[in-house]
Amino acid sequence: MRVSFEELQEEFKRVLLKLSFPNETADTCATIFASNSRDGIYSHGLNRFPVFVRHIQEGVVKPNAVPTLLDKNGAIERWDGNFAPGMANATHSMNRAIELAKENGIGCVAIKNTTHWMRGGTYGWQAADAGCIGICFTNATANMPAWGGNKPVLGNNPLVIAVPRAEGHVVLDMAMSQFSYGKMQEYELKKETLPFPGGYDEHDNLSTDPAAIRKTKLALPIGFWKGSGLSLMLDILAVALSGGQSTAKITQGEYETGISQCFICIHQPDMHTALIEEILAFTKSSAPTSSPKTVCYPGERTLQTRHENEKNGIPVNEEIWQQLKSM
Amino acid sequence: MRVSFEELQEEFKRVLLKLSFPNETADTCATIFASNSRDGIYSHGLNRFPVFVRHIQEGVVKPNAVPTLLDKNGAIERWDGNFAPGMANATHSMNRAIELAKENGIGCVAIKNTTHWMRGGTYGWQAADAGCIGICFTNATANMPAWGGNKPVLGNNPLVIAVPRAEGHVVLDMAMSQFSYGKMQEYELKKETLPFPGGYDEHDNLSTDPAAIRKTKLALPIGFWKGSGLSLMLDILAVALSGGQSTAKITQGEYETGISQCFICIHQPDMHTALIEEILAFTKSSAPTSSPKTVCYPGERTLQTRHENEKNGIPVNEEIWQQLKSM
Repeated sequence: MRVSFEELQEEFKRVLLKLSFPNETADTCATIFASNSRDGIYSHGLNRFPVFVRHIQEGVVKPNAVPTLLDKNGAIERWDGNFAPGMANATHSMNRAIELAKENGIGCVAIKNTTHWMRGGTYGWQAADAGCIGICFTNATANMPAWGGNKPVLGNNPLVIAVPRAEGHVVLDMAMSQFSYGKMQEYELKKETLPFPGGYDEHDNLSTDPAAIRKTKLALPIGFWKGSGLSLMLDILAVALSGGQSTAKITQGEYETGISQCFICIHQPDMHTALIEEILAFTKSSAPTSSPKTVCYPGERTLQTRHENEKNGIPVNEEIWQQLKSM
Repeated sequence: MRVSFEELQEEFKRVLLKLSFPNETADTCATIFASNSRDGIYSHGLNRFPVFVRHIQEGVVKPNAVPTLLDKNGAIERWDGNFAPGMANATHSMNRAIELAKENGIGCVAIKNTTHWMRGGTYGWQAADAGCIGICFTNATANMPAWGGNKPVLGNNPLVIAVPRAEGHVVLDMAMSQFSYGKMQEYELKKETLPFPGGYDEHDNLSTDPAAIRKTKLALPIGFWKGSGLSLMLDILAVALSGGQSTAKITQGEYETGISQCFICIHQPDMHTALIEEILAFTKSSAPTSSPKTVCYPGERTLQTRHENEKNGIPVNEEIWQQLKSM
């Protein structure tokens, strides 16, 4: 079943207003949830909305809170998210980073005590839509081991890098785990094994069994020791800059909340767009001619899905759609 | 055989002065080469010096060139490296980024037409020694496939992230390939296979055979599609910001030169050091008690090696050491 972007957005907004969201916050969050489904990131669109609603009802996310400025040092600002909806906090933070970049060439906003931003790519697209390079990352609950360890101590800490481009922004939205837990669940439900090792089983052996990995919470960092190091650095950066909770602290809590994030924006008049096209053409030239496979740049498939779903409607899980309508 | 840091540094400097390096540039480059050996990065210390000398003699690296400012936009600067020694250009660029960060909280320097910086970590330590967070990256000749392709189109594009810390900086220095070609050569010389797949053989199959991978130049990006995307983004960022050559262009040249790099520095009075210690302690707590293995933070082993080599002398390959002395 497919619904239009507007239907989806309106339903989300209606429910959020009922949950006593201020109009503007409801609008921001409803638009982001609808956009995530429209862009094919179904796990963080409609499918995630019921969990978001539960977190509001349980007081984890505070619909009436707004971020407050803690301190400012040139083109860097530090904010407290006050447990406001993570999407509104992240949108606000990237907006401030865009403003700082437009004033200073580069700007950085760190935020503590925020809540889940849903899909990190959202804020990369936001920066690129404003003509800026955007880099942002978040920490998270521990669900990966560090290299040499056998307990979950690292978050999958998604990293987003976005570069504006007239024909479609280049947007990398990448968690540090080889597979997300959501993706592993999909394989498990289909009773399939992962195409590559995705973590460790209870005997500390590399495994392609999604159920075994979901049990240990030992998802594999990309590139073994390398992703382990990069995940750790992103946590350190987010915490050093925001003064907020680290993965260590977040993991002690009942919910994945009170997280720390960082938004860096760069603006320069000349982004050397012809050179970017040259890079993309060179990269795409490497697809094997004998194969139907293509080489895509980060963000390319998202844009294709967006266009398809704008034309044909957004596919929704009928059960969750009905659940939303009855909320 | 072991030699002292001073002996090594003096020999490097003597040779560089003979090659008509200005005194200050000779000093910078000699110190960096000696530091790389001291820190255990032997591949980019003494062992690399003969190649550097050849590149000077062949006119690839211009000892008398200095970087020139192209334009400035707030806290961002764009420089032309004029094919000066890459270590001097990178040191200068990170210094400018540090100055910009101390003025503006955050600063960014992009440089084009530079030459090999040897070990990226050098400039991370430099930023951290100045009390700043440092982030830098470079592009490079293509030696990895993009996800879905079967030709080398991506550089291993090292990424460095450094955070200052009184007890020893946390410095990640990470190329986008699972194994460097130097590391694969070591395995090949020892007639060993890689512990994990490190690239593709001539039939496009994942392989642990270092010789087969060195032949195809299809080293594996960390995390398959993820490292492929991240390597591409780093090339795009370096080129969009510097206006310099991309991996596509560099790969057409006879030498890996005329490369593009980016240096971002962040300075804030409070780096929340107690919180960083908490992160490191939590991460280190995850080492299995039953095993002699430990969990190290990025930069920890480098510091251990540095201390050992400062105490006992720096291990050198006797043949290359004699070669250096006779230069």
